[in-house]
Amino acid sequence: MTTEHTPVAIVGGGPAGLLLSHLLHRSGVEHVVLEARPRQEIEHTHRAGILEASSVQTLVDAGLDRVLREGDRHDGIVLRFDGEDHRIDLTGLTGRSVWLYPQTDVFIDLATRREADGGDIRWGATVTRVLDGDSDRPGVLWTDQEGAAHELRCDVLVGADGSRSTLRHTLPEAQRRTFSHEYPYAWFGVIVQTPRSAPELVYTTSEHGFALVSQRTDTHQRLYFQCDPDEDPNTWSEDRIWAELQRRVVGPDGFRLTEGPVVERSVLRFRSSVVEPVRHGRMLLAGDAAHTVPPTGAKGLNLALADVVVLHDVLDTWIAKRDDALLDEYGRRVSERVWRAQHFSAWMSSMLHSHPGETGFAARRRVAELRTLTSSEAGRRFLAEGYTGWGPVLGKPALAGLAS
Amino acid sequence: MTTEHTPVAIVGGGPAGLLLSHLLHRSGVEHVVLEARPRQEIEHTHRAGILEASSVQTLVDAGLDRVLREGDRHDGIVLRFDGEDHRIDLTGLTGRSVWLYPQTDVFIDLATRREADGGDIRWGATVTRVLDGDSDRPGVLWTDQEGAAHELRCDVLVGADGSRSTLRHTLPEAQRRTFSHEYPYAWFGVIVQTPRSAPELVYTTSEHGFALVSQRTDTHQRLYFQCDPDEDPNTWSEDRIWAELQRRVVGPDGFRLTEGPVVERSVLRFRSSVVEPVRHGRMLLAGDAAHTVPPTGAKGLNLALADVVVLHDVLDTWIAKRDDALLDEYGRRVSERVWRAQHFSAWMSSMLHSHPGETGFAARRRVAELRTLTSSEAGRRFLAEGYTGWGPVLGKPALAGLAS
Repeated sequence: MTTEHTPVAIVGGGPAGLLLSHLLHRSGVEHVVLEARPRQEIEHTHRAGILEASSVQTLVDAGLDRVLREGDRHDGIVLRFDGEDHRIDLTGLTGRSVWLYPQTDVFIDLATRREADGGDIRWGATVTRVLDGDSDRPGVLWTDQEGAAHELRCDVLVGADGSRSTLRHTLPEAQRRTFSHEYPYAWFGVIVQTPRSAPELVYTTSEHGFALVSQRTDTHQRLYFQCDPDEDPNTWSEDRIWAELQRRVVGPDGFRLTEGPVVERSVLRFRSSVVEPVRHGRMLLAGDAAHTVPPTGAKGLNLALADVVVLHDVLDTWIAKRDDALLDEYGRRVSERVWRAQHFSAWMSSMLHSHPGETGFAARRRVAELRTLTSSEAGRRFLAEGYTGWGPVLGKPALAGLAS
Repeated sequence: MTTEHTPVAIVGGGPAGLLLSHLLHRSGVEHVVLEARPRQEIEHTHRAGILEASSVQTLVDAGLDRVLREGDRHDGIVLRFDGEDHRIDLTGLTGRSVWLYPQTDVFIDLATRREADGGDIRWGATVTRVLDGDSDRPGVLWTDQEGAAHELRCDVLVGADGSRSTLRHTLPEAQRRTFSHEYPYAWFGVIVQTPRSAPELVYTTSEHGFALVSQRTDTHQRLYFQCDPDEDPNTWSEDRIWAELQRRVVGPDGFRLTEGPVVERSVLRFRSSVVEPVRHGRMLLAGDAAHTVPPTGAKGLNLALADVVVLHDVLDTWIAKRDDALLDEYGRRVSERVWRAQHFSAWMSSMLHSHPGETGFAARRRVAELRTLTSSEAGRRFLAEGYTGWGPVLGKPALAGLAS
């Protein structure tokens, strides 16, 4: 078994782990990334993404500007209820836009850049055990793709290993608190081979439940509709999928989705969770390892990137001063944004989905909320503020030049 | 048994019934009001009230302007959470104020005026049966204070007889739908003999639950705190009431309530309900008979007055044209405001109260909502719009001259 040491070991090579790796590289901090899956596999897993302006700013600042050329800037979204459209003019209301840019592409941009920069990213590296998590020299045991075991020791260990984080699970229960919420619904998501049916995202709710008309490319689109968390997507015929979608998206001017082949399908579970604290000695959690949100607000990737910007800043300072109390700054600085995003995601979800067994009162109240919100400039702006994010990370101005 | 006929019979002599009576008198429409309780009894039942600007406008337009001289105009409210105060500048944000003016005083103003105008208000008149509700000559059987039975026939029968409305209950179940919601908490309300502890209403929430610091006069104040719906207020000592209040209102600068004798106490149940439709043939429901809201948003009295303004307008037109289809205008015109108020009341309630058995996630999410809302100008304005009401009734400008 080989034994190595690195100042910073990052477990997880998704967008959070790779962005941290890239930022540490730029500030000259040696580190190693261990990622359980092969790079090819991640690149071929389609994951959607809506980037807040501050996330785009983060990528652009990091020298990754493909999003500006190939991402789709969206200046508004549509809320459709009672068969009527209510546009939220995100940019007009907040000065900020969002970018439709898949998480998969964020990964590709980062992985490509790390490779070009000679980054030490170990793909197919499965962490099997965390060593001396409470000490000032923690480490992990990991196995490579050939099954050989290795030990990696570090000064700081970062868990950016997603919602099923190995690192989080090694923390003693007495030292962490998990705040969580389960939802009685999920999303049935499909990728379909058709042209766009709408220029902007349409969030629609009716007595049949929620649906989301999203976009992807000129030839492929993303569509979602609310379903039971235990739904098996493979039992659905394409005809049934289209019929369910069409009845949910009924809108003005005889709106219909353009139909075509369903090329991918999956069920996205809804779960809200927050682990506190995010620091345990020299171990730190970031992104989905620390918190998950339901997909309604599209906040997951944005929170992960925002975490990493703060974490990098804190690590930079810590490396210069070696005062462990500084590491607590990380949790203190990210917590408010995490909880705002939790509220926003839970709120959007509850406002737009029909609860199974929802009472008539609850259904009418939801529509009254949507009506009150969309008919008020303040209401629309409050929603748009949450949707586009809460402005700058680390006091930077929020992508002002790119907003319109 | 005497039998009479009147064009409009109004069951219920609370603020809704008496305002309708007053407005009909002013437009020269004969009518009779039957109220089960004696006038003295209603005058001596303390009921709080926060009037929206448009409600004050309604009273002033009707020649009842004591509210402007003796009511307390409030230009803001305070939300207190995590021990910090967040003022919502109602007037600065919306151009509208609210008036602290007890419902009891609205009643007194209306009853006094109706008496001075020689109105036919029959106190202590208990309706025992509704007659021919589906016909164009409905009526009621009623008993006077001496127990003598009478029959009153009319062209239009109005049920303004409160949340336990006799009229509503006579409607066939197949013809009405009740939307309702029960809350797992209530308010323990007290009137205490002390000077004011705060100049504006303070809505406070903490791990101990909700409390509201309100005002009444220079010598008496209203205070409330969240309790179990089955709480028996008479089992509480005054010391225990003060201790419970003090620990809930903890705020900046060592805030403490000034203590004094508790002169009145009661438990206010929370219930949301809406009956639809509000018209059945020639019978129409208004105010609490048609809908109830929990006290958090203080919307009940405001909705009742808004209903009546529309109902009077509809009845005036109907009397001139005698086309029953016109009566449906009433429900169509009040429905949106009713549902907005339902949402607002349910929202304020859920944001400020701790649910029994509330999870850590839900409690944190509520604080994140309060924080997001109060730290955003748009959020504060959206809340203020709901709190002050949604502007004019019947297209009238909302009390612009009285707002500041």
